[in-house]
Amino acid sequence: MRRSAAHIVHEVDRHAPRMVLGLRPDPSALLSGLKDVRMDTLKKLSYHSILSAGQFDRETLLGIYKLSCLLQLGHLRIRDSLYDKILATAFFEPSTRTRLSFESAMMALGGKTLSVTEAATTGIAKGESILDIGQMFNSYAHAVVVRHTRQEALAELSTYLRIPLINGGNGSDEHPTQAIADWYAILKWRPDLLDEGMPEKKRIHLGIVGTPARMRTIKSFLLLSLLFDRSISRITIISEMADPLGAEMPDYCRQSRIPVDIASDLEVVLPELDVIYMNSIAYLGDGYRTLESRFRINAQSSLRPGSVVLHPLARKEELSVELDTSSHNLYFNQADGAVFIRKALLLTIFDKIPLPVLS
Amino acid sequence: MRRSAAHIVHEVDRHAPRMVLGLRPDPSALLSGLKDVRMDTLKKLSYHSILSAGQFDRETLLGIYKLSCLLQLGHLRIRDSLYDKILATAFFEPSTRTRLSFESAMMALGGKTLSVTEAATTGIAKGESILDIGQMFNSYAHAVVVRHTRQEALAELSTYLRIPLINGGNGSDEHPTQAIADWYAILKWRPDLLDEGMPEKKRIHLGIVGTPARMRTIKSFLLLSLLFDRSISRITIISEMADPLGAEMPDYCRQSRIPVDIASDLEVVLPELDVIYMNSIAYLGDGYRTLESRFRINAQSSLRPGSVVLHPLARKEELSVELDTSSHNLYFNQADGAVFIRKALLLTIFDKIPLPVLS
Amino acid sequence: MRRSAAHIVHEVDRHAPRMVLGLRPDPSALLSGLKDVRMDTLKKLSYHSILSAGQFDRETLLGIYKLSCLLQLGHLRIRDSLYDKILATAFFEPSTRTRLSFESAMMALGGKTLSVTEAATTGIAKGESILDIGQMFNSYAHAVVVRHTRQEALAELSTYLRIPLINGGNGSDEHPTQAIADWYAILKWRPDLLDEGMPEKKRIHLGIVGTPARMRTIKSFLLLSLLFDRSISRITIISEMADPLGAEMPDYCRQSRIPVDIASDLEVVLPELDVIYMNSIAYLGDGYRTLESRFRINAQSSLRPGSVVLHPLARKEELSVELDTSSHNLYFNQADGAVFIRKALLLTIFDKIPLPVLS
Repeated sequence: MRRSAAHIVHEVDRHAPRMVLGLRPDPSALLSGLKDVRMDTLKKLSYHSILSAGQFDRETLLGIYKLSCLLQLGHLRIRDSLYDKILATAFFEPSTRTRLSFESAMMALGGKTLSVTEAATTGIAKGESILDIGQMFNSYAHAVVVRHTRQEALAELSTYLRIPLINGGNGSDEHPTQAIADWYAILKWRPDLLDEGMPEKKRIHLGIVGTPARMRTIKSFLLLSLLFDRSISRITIISEMADPLGAEMPDYCRQSRIPVDIASDLEVVLPELDVIYMNSIAYLGDGYRTLESRFRINAQSSLRPGSVVLHPLARKEELSVELDTSSHNLYFNQADGAVFIRKALLLTIFDKIPLPVLS
Repeated sequence: MRRSAAHIVHEVDRHAPRMVLGLRPDPSALLSGLKDVRMDTLKKLSYHSILSAGQFDRETLLGIYKLSCLLQLGHLRIRDSLYDKILATAFFEPSTRTRLSFESAMMALGGKTLSVTEAATTGIAKGESILDIGQMFNSYAHAVVVRHTRQEALAELSTYLRIPLINGGNGSDEHPTQAIADWYAILKWRPDLLDEGMPEKKRIHLGIVGTPARMRTIKSFLLLSLLFDRSISRITIISEMADPLGAEMPDYCRQSRIPVDIASDLEVVLPELDVIYMNSIAYLGDGYRTLESRFRINAQSSLRPGSVVLHPLARKEELSVELDTSSHNLYFNQADGAVFIRKALLLTIFDKIPLPVLS
Repeated sequence: MRRSAAHIVHEVDRHAPRMVLGLRPDPSALLSGLKDVRMDTLKKLSYHSILSAGQFDRETLLGIYKLSCLLQLGHLRIRDSLYDKILATAFFEPSTRTRLSFESAMMALGGKTLSVTEAATTGIAKGESILDIGQMFNSYAHAVVVRHTRQEALAELSTYLRIPLINGGNGSDEHPTQAIADWYAILKWRPDLLDEGMPEKKRIHLGIVGTPARMRTIKSFLLLSLLFDRSISRITIISEMADPLGAEMPDYCRQSRIPVDIASDLEVVLPELDVIYMNSIAYLGDGYRTLESRFRINAQSSLRPGSVVLHPLARKEELSVELDTSSHNLYFNQADGAVFIRKALLLTIFDKIPLPVLS
């Protein structure tokens, strides 16, 4: 029998707080581990663009995390911080999560938002020079978040742009703010990963399902992972592609000294992984492709005890809902934490980090 | 000759206030009739979802109407009431009126809005689990209004959702806030309908054009109508369908003791009706269907003197513009009043009813 | 090699202020020329609609420019002027620039915005009476900006509308706010054009590429141009159409006493023009058409020294990017100035011009 609204009234909003699913690490532990981080390191990002995970050194990234912890713990008065600022969100490639995340973050800081969701379908995309689109945003907003199907669009857009540009995903190149949110989740789960003198056996073995060279979430994530080379014992890329790392990534990996290998069978390597970064599909410029069933995990998968799963969401069959109630579920916390990362980035870009924090 | 902008300049914005069309009952009369209603009855809806018209008992509904009257009369200072709240509007089925109504209401209360209008066409709907969509909204908003083509989507969405959910229309199931707005219009027109001891001859004969079992606006409206069983002499459903009431509604009708009958010819029953609830089309999951011409009314229809017409709008040919200037037109007031109902619901859900009202 | 985000990080946001392209005249010169303009002339537009360029006499237009200069120079405290107002933007024909311009302007004034971008595709346009759409906006907003593919839609929408209506483009009829922004750019560039006793040789020869009768930006622009008949020596319409001016425009031209001629070859007349108003395409009701290559200009075109180019944007090949760095580029300033024009119009319509300005 189909369940009508009248039937579910008594199930929804039960008096007891609804069960929160998955791991929800307290940011206090991470904040404590970041106590020596100097916040003025974030000054360098003032009125700067956020384009690549590669533009973050370890110190700056930890500064963002310290600010994010303070925001998530509710320690800062930021309700009107950006009251006179407008953030434009221009999505030439459909997105809902990234857009809502930035808009929600901006609103919580007292700022205003201009949305261009029809970008892919209206006159603005029908042959109009993307240089002019950049020029246009100068008049209407103080910063702009952009997602585009073509990698080069970011450089083109920035040619005439005079306001900070945040890369919300450029083709298969990068998605830096997603990666920053991903590592935020990992560090809240294991603040001890901040130690730069961890014994080998406590380091984590990171598994990434996908193709870094062709998937922007993974590429950015891997770039940031290389900053924690003292805490990672190994990175295994699980991919069916012939050359998953592409041309640039192997150089980065060699510089970081983290051993990186490639495996084609997830089930075999799964019991060795501490963090499994799942992915479903990628927009590769020529269409979406779903990963094969041998790259899926569920309650029967041989996940190592204490291991955690990340996923940038949206997900499909590759990550079973059976895992939602498990202690492997860090992906919901990963999603929840992203809005604090975005608040931190916006406060930083607009040079509005509250003074008590900076001193 | 085609009328250009230059030609109409002197017609638009004439100095005399533009004629307001249709009946515009003063909310003061209804407010007076509600003076004994205790506003603390609304506390039970604090941080609760609005899913079904069936979740409203008479007392709670009248509490909403009392608050709405106060809002419509401008008696309350609510400009910044929801300044730190974000309402998301997620329309998986196209809507403009309902979305604008909620967004306008939220803005007037100082709140902010996040719009997802592309929901039906973007990745978010391309196979992404609706459970995850619910989880997503937890991070971005404090409440969410949803409209979906599938009835079950409401229950599914609420599974992981931890914020209040307002049903903006779930398939052919319900559209509770519309029904609440509809009865607000009726009670402002006839506050005496609040009397629970009305003589038979003063009670109203209500006509509903459509198919309650398959049209959510009507189903919700009928559910609320049953709360005024002392004031309704009869309900006539005008429908060409074999089983317009469906499976659930007959039981509800029997419990209320209001006689309900079915007629297939509107013209025959029209002179007996005090309230005619018109409808045009319904989105039934498989497409729009327009009602036949024998279910249309215009200036020549044999409307009873003093009777009123309601219509949830948008309308097509079934309700002629000839009636716009008549005293049968309650449908414009019905539409205008809806934004006050939505303000009242938002203040109630967020537990921000101004204190002088509550005491 | 494709340029990735990581590669461009060091190019974007260079420490030196990014070069601002094209002419950026200081509004102070124009403000000085407008010092005798009485601002109370704007009172007549209070709670009035902006439908046609033809509704502006010279005095009122200069009042708008004086207010715009003050806004652009940052002389006014207007951050919360419209804090309790909602502006709806209803685009039945796609637009991004005009919509963002109005929304950005409204936000900068502290106001809120309701966007209907899906208007052309949703139920609202599927046969719903446009009269009812006008009625709907009364409930949700305090003013509405509308763009529609059909010229008559403006008159139809205003039938039941009781709030100010701003024409954002109605078919091929008018686009008044664009024209107001265009002349703002011209007057900032040449404030001496305000003189009503200019010698012939200092007057400007204005070239308009396009078909006034069928392109709304040009029609409105030409209507406003006729107000500066003491400062324009000649208007040349460059068009391949048989009857570019159409039925109405020749009468207007004759009344203004500005000689108007038609040329079919841009290259021949280009060296004589002081202002060249370029256009690319027009939405003509039956589709977009691009102008032929003989109506294009680039760095090799024989532009008169000191002449300037305008373009409502978006542009295509007709206006080469080679000209962006030249001193002929007034089109970026034209675009930038438009948001101040829209702020001025909104403050005027809502009767919120700051008092020190009015006195």
